[in-house]
Amino acid sequence: MLAAFSVVPVGVGDSIGDQLAEVLRIIDASGLPYKINPMGTVIEGEWNDVMALIKKCHSSVMKTGKRTITSISIDDRPGHPNRLDEKVKSLERRIGKSLKK
Amino acid sequence: MLAAFSVVPVGVGDSIGDQLAEVLRIIDASGLPYKINPMGTVIEGEWNDVMALIKKCHSSVMKTGKRTITSISIDDRPGHPNRLDEKVKSLERRIGKSLKK
Amino acid sequence: MLAAFSVVPVGVGDSIGDQLAEVLRIIDASGLPYKINPMGTVIEGEWNDVMALIKKCHSSVMKTGKRTITSISIDDRPGHPNRLDEKVKSLERRIGKSLKK
Amino acid sequence: MLAAFSVVPVGVGDSIGDQLAEVLRIIDASGLPYKINPMGTVIEGEWNDVMALIKKCHSSVMKTGKRTITSISIDDRPGHPNRLDEKVKSLERRIGKSLKK
Repeated sequence: MLAAFSVVPVGVGDSIGDQLAEVLRIIDASGLPYKINPMGTVIEGEWNDVMALIKKCHSSVMKTGKRTITSISIDDRPGHPNRLDEKVKSLERRIGKSLKK
Repeated sequence: MLAAFSVVPVGVGDSIGDQLAEVLRIIDASGLPYKINPMGTVIEGEWNDVMALIKKCHSSVMKTGKRTITSISIDDRPGHPNRLDEKVKSLERRIGKSLKK
Repeated sequence: MLAAFSVVPVGVGDSIGDQLAEVLRIIDASGLPYKINPMGTVIEGEWNDVMALIKKCHSSVMKTGKRTITSISIDDRPGHPNRLDEKVKSLERRIGKSLKK
Repeated sequence: MLAAFSVVPVGVGDSIGDQLAEVLRIIDASGLPYKINPMGTVIEGEWNDVMALIKKCHSSVMKTGKRTITSISIDDRPGHPNRLDEKVKSLERRIGKSLKK
């Protein structure tokens, strides 16, 4: 399955880059396939692996603050492997054009 | 922590009430405190209990379809118990008025 | 259509009740049908009315802070009126039981 | 502001690529800066321009189906231009490493 998620520390100021940098270090070290975008990260894997990683990211941000808002969107479609790359490629093939990534 | 979530079967028709009824049966039987609203359910509990319940709901919908989209929003603020009731009551006290629920 | 939304000020502290109380005042005064829940508010109306109200709420929070995160989930199903009440009632009829709200 | 959004037709089958291809054509032709990812598209612009584009995408999917679920996440932080590129670059600078995109 694919999961897009973001972790937002609330109450530590409007600059939250230090907390997010630590989240990205955790994601990058996890071994799960991922793609970062300006509003979050998309990872691909089985439910338990995906949720263990998101919990680790959420807990990392909780350590430095009193309140954290984490949003997760899951798209689960068994039998369609490597959707991290294939979903966008499939759309590009349909419209016959390379899209901005 | 509080978690709002919704589970949407994709590709089984525009009427998805049968799948959602089963989800609500699972939530109601779980023992976790919950409140249902027209766009999802809010539950309160520890991370592992909350995620185990959402996984059960998601898996229940996957059994009847080929694709499921599950959205989760977590608001984690330790030291503030019974937020399922208190968050709305606190807002009502601030504005001095009962709100529609 | 139904729209669930939440507005979160980032960087003003972990207690954001003052900002949210003002948001609820705006929603309650808007005349649009709504239901508040512990994680947000669900409103029912046409696209332009719904989005005008959410913009007003978002702008209200922006006035008091430097950064705001607003999340919106829309469920649009023409021909099904009063879904603010009917969606939950329909689920209760299917499972033959009153659910916690 | 930045807005991540996705539009999901419900009830037209589990393959929704035709509808999403049309959505991407609309986004690509809009002139608003965007980046596509496997779970949605992030656009950057003023509230009214962003919402006009999302409405156009949502309406396009509604034409071919009976029910559409559209999710929008807004991160509004005035005074920080070109966040479509800068948010990820800023994280990469902090951790001293290029991330997968």
